[in-house]
Amino acid sequence: MHPPRFTAESSSHGIVERDFTVDGIPGVLWSPAAGADRAPLVLMGHGGGTHKKAPAMTGRAQRLVTGCGCHVAVIDAPGHGDRPRTAHDEREIAALYRARAAGEPEGPIVVRYNAHLADIAVPEWRTTLDALQELPEIGADGPVGYFGINMGTAIGVPLVAVEPRITAAVFGQHWPDALAETARRITVPIEFDLQWDDEHIPREAGLALFDAFASREKSLHANAGKHKELPRFEADSAVRFFARHFDRMTTSRA
Amino acid sequence: MHPPRFTAESSSHGIVERDFTVDGIPGVLWSPAAGADRAPLVLMGHGGGTHKKAPAMTGRAQRLVTGCGCHVAVIDAPGHGDRPRTAHDEREIAALYRARAAGEPEGPIVVRYNAHLADIAVPEWRTTLDALQELPEIGADGPVGYFGINMGTAIGVPLVAVEPRITAAVFGQHWPDALAETARRITVPIEFDLQWDDEHIPREAGLALFDAFASREKSLHANAGKHKELPRFEADSAVRFFARHFDRMTTSRA
Repeated sequence: MHPPRFTAESSSHGIVERDFTVDGIPGVLWSPAAGADRAPLVLMGHGGGTHKKAPAMTGRAQRLVTGCGCHVAVIDAPGHGDRPRTAHDEREIAALYRARAAGEPEGPIVVRYNAHLADIAVPEWRTTLDALQELPEIGADGPVGYFGINMGTAIGVPLVAVEPRITAAVFGQHWPDALAETARRITVPIEFDLQWDDEHIPREAGLALFDAFASREKSLHANAGKHKELPRFEADSAVRFFARHFDRMTTSRA
Repeated sequence: MHPPRFTAESSSHGIVERDFTVDGIPGVLWSPAAGADRAPLVLMGHGGGTHKKAPAMTGRAQRLVTGCGCHVAVIDAPGHGDRPRTAHDEREIAALYRARAAGEPEGPIVVRYNAHLADIAVPEWRTTLDALQELPEIGADGPVGYFGINMGTAIGVPLVAVEPRITAAVFGQHWPDALAETARRITVPIEFDLQWDDEHIPREAGLALFDAFASREKSLHANAGKHKELPRFEADSAVRFFARHFDRMTTSRA
């Protein structure tokens, strides 16, 4: 396996941002500017309809790099960002917009479309992780986390279930329909975000997905508010979650 | 109103510990050793069967004083710590032990006994707060929080519902039966801890109490584990919760 091919590099406020591709998949890697020592890696999955450098991604990456000293990688999901849409993508997106305009539930369409994207994205993520671990500043032995809400959870749950290198994950805000069975195979520590007044995901559905994880250590953070009102402080909480678990892993191996 | 009567003082690791009484109620006040400036106050309610200096109280107080720069006060609940037990206390405690030994549900006894204790404790807390606010290092204008789990929630919910000086609260791990109606009158920001596998408080009961709060800002932290396995990191989370809200209040008044 080769390391990622870097296509652009910039830096500001102590963070280096490098665009890369792995097997044609476009991604971005944020890293601490100071120190070439090995540091943990967090893979982040973006939400549906957005992309690898959407504000939620850059904001969370900044917190993780500065608060945790981690590397953070995001790749564009299939049909998102710099990647082409297929005819299937176009049909599903049109179906979603029709449902939204008609005031019909979005859940059934999001669930089936995201499951389709996850089938494609999971092997892409594994190949990307192979490549990132070829970098000397990451390496093959360091802790790896995964952080993805909404579509990031639809892709992340099947990824974490099959990828033993990922040892801690933050998920949230998805329906259990296509994910609960897979979540039952996940035993690594997780933090799970849920909006108590989500107008798309019924409360019982969100709680059922949290309940499905087999992890001995799992924390539900449910906040008052609608689907898009996930509080900013949950990103800080995710940083602390990873710092706690990476630290523990580092200590236990020392 | 007079300030509390201090009966003992010691200090270690940058924290001053002062025993006090207010109207004969014994309490303890922990304060930052450095700086005589006014600082926020957190009132903490201890759990059933314990007392004002139980390890959970001293541990949380240490985190709050050092992490948040707050003053922290705890008083012994009626029938607890240095306070005498009445015949009613003895009967309820005996009933609780009988239920426990017989493997019967503890909930009905805890709910009714804690409600009785709250009737006594709420006015005691308000008088104690009056006295503490007479101290120059606390004052009458500063932010006041409340932090109490288990019996600390049974007493804290009716206290916060009637006490407008308390502007942020951390609760958790109690049944909704005697508290949900009162919780519906609480609108200040809250954080609420619940154990996902609590063997005493059914999951639906815990969620119903969280749901009852009218607060626009409320966060549920539900962790895998049994009743007594509330993770230590939730105490750190409570410190950050108070720091966030105290800071906001200070800023908004500046």
